[in-house]
Amino acid sequence: MISDFQDWARNRQARIETSLETLLPSAKFSPEQLHDAMRYTVLGGGKRIRPLLAYAAGELSMADEERVTIAAIAVELIHAYSLVHDDLPCMDNDVLRRGKPTCHIEYNEAIALLVGDSLQSLAFQLLAEYRLADTPHVQLEMIKRLAQAAGSRGMAGGQAVDLASIGKTLSLPELEFMHIHKTGSLIRAAVMIGACCGKSLNDLQLKNLDHFAKNIGLAFQVVDDVLDTEATTATLGKTAGKDAENNKPTYVSILGVNQARKLAEELRHDAYQSLEYFGTTATRLRQVTDFIIQREF
Amino acid sequence: MISDFQDWARNRQARIETSLETLLPSAKFSPEQLHDAMRYTVLGGGKRIRPLLAYAAGELSMADEERVTIAAIAVELIHAYSLVHDDLPCMDNDVLRRGKPTCHIEYNEAIALLVGDSLQSLAFQLLAEYRLADTPHVQLEMIKRLAQAAGSRGMAGGQAVDLASIGKTLSLPELEFMHIHKTGSLIRAAVMIGACCGKSLNDLQLKNLDHFAKNIGLAFQVVDDVLDTEATTATLGKTAGKDAENNKPTYVSILGVNQARKLAEELRHDAYQSLEYFGTTATRLRQVTDFIIQREF
Repeated sequence: MISDFQDWARNRQARIETSLETLLPSAKFSPEQLHDAMRYTVLGGGKRIRPLLAYAAGELSMADEERVTIAAIAVELIHAYSLVHDDLPCMDNDVLRRGKPTCHIEYNEAIALLVGDSLQSLAFQLLAEYRLADTPHVQLEMIKRLAQAAGSRGMAGGQAVDLASIGKTLSLPELEFMHIHKTGSLIRAAVMIGACCGKSLNDLQLKNLDHFAKNIGLAFQVVDDVLDTEATTATLGKTAGKDAENNKPTYVSILGVNQARKLAEELRHDAYQSLEYFGTTATRLRQVTDFIIQREF
Repeated sequence: MISDFQDWARNRQARIETSLETLLPSAKFSPEQLHDAMRYTVLGGGKRIRPLLAYAAGELSMADEERVTIAAIAVELIHAYSLVHDDLPCMDNDVLRRGKPTCHIEYNEAIALLVGDSLQSLAFQLLAEYRLADTPHVQLEMIKRLAQAAGSRGMAGGQAVDLASIGKTLSLPELEFMHIHKTGSLIRAAVMIGACCGKSLNDLQLKNLDHFAKNIGLAFQVVDDVLDTEATTATLGKTAGKDAENNKPTYVSILGVNQARKLAEELRHDAYQSLEYFGTTATRLRQVTDFIIQREF
């Protein structure tokens, strides 16, 4: 089963990479440097966890994988843009990402700013340009979902709360609020948008799926905090120990490593429960869940 | 006629302001500072030239003005986000905009970055959330148009070319290429998206309208360059003379003021010609054209 999942995941990751190669503007086109920097930022890196979730969620609705590929890439472009902007000196000021110099180090700050801006536009362009759902109405729903997940009441809002929290003591509910927005909203969007590419789900299915997505989004962040404490920079491909250095509240700083690991397990349990309704069609989603909880980088 | 146009424009500007008040997230909602900064950036300022173009273009297709209002606001939010990011220290490093301190001066750089990011998301959210066209298919077309206009082969791409041109001598065609992207693409999108809110136009109409929009986009920039040379900071509400100070090539630096003014007149003439086909339904578009050419700030 494990090796089957690894094959499945590698195959989807490769598919995302190949499609990104085609969908990102060529560095031969003007403005060459900007296009080069967009490709540098997005290609050849990352675990593509959001796309894997989108593919796995697509199996619940028997979605065409070509549709899911485009939808998943739109989500991944939003994720990539957020990393570029998050690494800028006025934000987290980080120099290493996916084992490479961050965009503003490799190019410059202005280009990194425009790379992020352009990746966001491209995400919405793709969602509007290709046929991704059975009706254009559902496709508009997908665009709305991604825009909400990315905006001031989603991911960008979570980053604002994150910035405001530096050096402060947060309660567990406050930390949870921050992460539900900063990381969770885009992970939820990946799951829901992947499922939207296929047959329509009923309200109970959507509710269960959204509950799953919320739990898995939080679990992802809890594991991220544990890894930031325990892993090395070489393994992570980004600077380890940044949270403690920046005096940022994390699940580990509030709960300690052991309790944080326990919380991740509880969230996995809840996530699994939300999938019961779907039976075997959710096998891949369960596997991606395990992958998220058990990853070591 | 002039006072009639002024009434029309003031009425539409007020409508945009009122709708923005409602559509922007309240500063009472978390994250409060981000929402406050988004409202600071967008409300109470600007000539709203892109919305005026959208309303005027909507008259060609007998578009419902409520629809055009939302579509116009989406374009204006993209414009507003580009100004916030453009004013950042790593870009134009400007401290004054619309007579007020720029966003990163009033708040801080991180918030200004997130304000721009969130405004872009909100623009696409609005285009997907409200019913704006006779079919959802046309609405997807509108989203695609705006995304292309904003992205690396549109506005953001033009900004990258602009940055790369500082201190260089550009030919007139190179300068035109830059402005067709940096300013022109969003102005074209405003015109085309406004028209999409109503009855569908035929291919010849769309072609003429796009030709109009391209000319008016360039004319806008030529006038902008003249004003940057001739107007004062107090009149402009932003720092005057920045282009010369930054050693940026402009229509004035290449052509001189008199030839630049003449070019603006030629572009107006071309723009008018593209509207002949539409007869009296294009009266407002001609008036907005005159407003753009004759403005003094």
